[in-house]
Amino acid sequence: MMSASPHNAVTVNDVGPRDGLQNQPKILTPAERVKLVKALLGAGMTHVEVGAFVSPKAVPAMAGADEVLAGLAGAGDNTVLTVLIPNVRGYELAAAAGAKSVCMVLYGSDAMAQANAGMSRKQAEDATAEILQQAHSDGVRVISTIAVAFECPFDGPVEPQLVAEIASRFLELGTDELCIADTIGAANPQQVRSLTQALVDRHGAEQIGCHFHDTRAMGLANVFAAAESGIRKFDASIGGLGGCPFAPGASGNVATEDVVMMLEQMGHDTGIDLDGLMRASELAQDLTGTAPGGRASAWIKQDVMKRRTR
Amino acid sequence: MMSASPHNAVTVNDVGPRDGLQNQPKILTPAERVKLVKALLGAGMTHVEVGAFVSPKAVPAMAGADEVLAGLAGAGDNTVLTVLIPNVRGYELAAAAGAKSVCMVLYGSDAMAQANAGMSRKQAEDATAEILQQAHSDGVRVISTIAVAFECPFDGPVEPQLVAEIASRFLELGTDELCIADTIGAANPQQVRSLTQALVDRHGAEQIGCHFHDTRAMGLANVFAAAESGIRKFDASIGGLGGCPFAPGASGNVATEDVVMMLEQMGHDTGIDLDGLMRASELAQDLTGTAPGGRASAWIKQDVMKRRTR
Repeated sequence: MMSASPHNAVTVNDVGPRDGLQNQPKILTPAERVKLVKALLGAGMTHVEVGAFVSPKAVPAMAGADEVLAGLAGAGDNTVLTVLIPNVRGYELAAAAGAKSVCMVLYGSDAMAQANAGMSRKQAEDATAEILQQAHSDGVRVISTIAVAFECPFDGPVEPQLVAEIASRFLELGTDELCIADTIGAANPQQVRSLTQALVDRHGAEQIGCHFHDTRAMGLANVFAAAESGIRKFDASIGGLGGCPFAPGASGNVATEDVVMMLEQMGHDTGIDLDGLMRASELAQDLTGTAPGGRASAWIKQDVMKRRTR
Repeated sequence: MMSASPHNAVTVNDVGPRDGLQNQPKILTPAERVKLVKALLGAGMTHVEVGAFVSPKAVPAMAGADEVLAGLAGAGDNTVLTVLIPNVRGYELAAAAGAKSVCMVLYGSDAMAQANAGMSRKQAEDATAEILQQAHSDGVRVISTIAVAFECPFDGPVEPQLVAEIASRFLELGTDELCIADTIGAANPQQVRSLTQALVDRHGAEQIGCHFHDTRAMGLANVFAAAESGIRKFDASIGGLGGCPFAPGASGNVATEDVVMMLEQMGHDTGIDLDGLMRASELAQDLTGTAPGGRASAWIKQDVMKRRTR
């Protein structure tokens, strides 16, 4: 492994306790979710998306996000625990629960904004602008995520120019981070390379992150493509948590252990311990029964076997 | 899908009937192997590695390569059916059986050359030089493949400079194609990007191909990395055939259907029909019982369902 340098440092944000858990059938208690987050922190992760302040009727798996935050109160100043919010009401609940980092969702299409948050794309943008102002006066960090930034399951392909305009607006409004999300795993690495390079050329890479799903097996290719453009912040999900139980491996986030394995092998420094991640991945599988597990685990077992037999 | 142009044309060579079949436990008859190759040709593939002229004691799955070639005699002038050979004796057998394209193996390490062919790295190079001369006087096409071009399971990491030197020598000797093979699936896309760019800068991309395994889930990332450098020839294996039955998905070639799906989505023209590949992939699974199938199949089924429900 190469030694760390500012250029080589990469942040991996585990969104398994939010994006993963809300997309698999078993509902975990807040205490179980705290246990999973602590396993991730124990592996050296500093960035975790720990829950969402959304309607517990719509998303029962995220009920009790305030209890999750309370259970993680002693996590330390160097950790960034983020909660997802879909609207201003979500922000108020998150702030009241003591959240110090929120992820607000923007959209590449109107249909997805309607399906996800019952508003138009523009309404979501206005809400985000309002939240940004309030959050900064409250001392709360804001990630603005552009969902379906490449393709919408309802409206089809999304114009890169639209994504670039939304990104520019919110970076200029002072969002702490702008995240490009391939929500349904429809992007190919050529598209990712092109869009991220355009964004980095205009804004630099410091505040831009990417969020990929592995639906079409291109998750790691997309991470590499974004890294080629200079992106150094990636979302991922422990154990590839979130895979639809009816189509194994088909729709989960790219697995944290695979992203970390690849980035470390490429000479980047994630600060994350792969053996610790393996334990967190096994815990995710034990708790949910559905996390498929990343491919790093097979590789690590092979490698251990190799060491044993030679 | 974008329209084809010379820049966008990509050749995908299916090595499933060779690299795939010799790395899974069930031995297929020559007639079954012919059936699999014909399914691939039926999907529009023009390049297939159909067998190997190796010791049937060492590799029983490849016995009867002459029968496979005979069964494919009417495949047409536009198809390039290649057989792998490990040495001069293999070349003689292949030529006697009417092979018009052979793949001779070079090595990034001595230990792999010994393990695979019972000779030193240099001896394999000398044999390849001899074969090249004979083949060209026989009108036979030669692919020179550098095995373990990134890492050897016995000797560890391979110096890119060594691979570049071997590549230069055989391109200068007139090999029709030079293939960079990540035999054990140990390369990361940064390494691939760097090595392939150096080779393309020096020799152009026309005669250089790449061969990746998906051991660490980086198969498609490596294909993309090489494509970024200008590489337009890729080996792949139908259904990801070759995955070890004791570690599912762990060591097969990158799946042909996934490579074709990604390259087509990136705007390249492979000339291959994905629905036809799905049928070939199902056949590979029926015949072997072990081909895991690429991820494109889940995506295509999803997409078909989407078309049905909306």
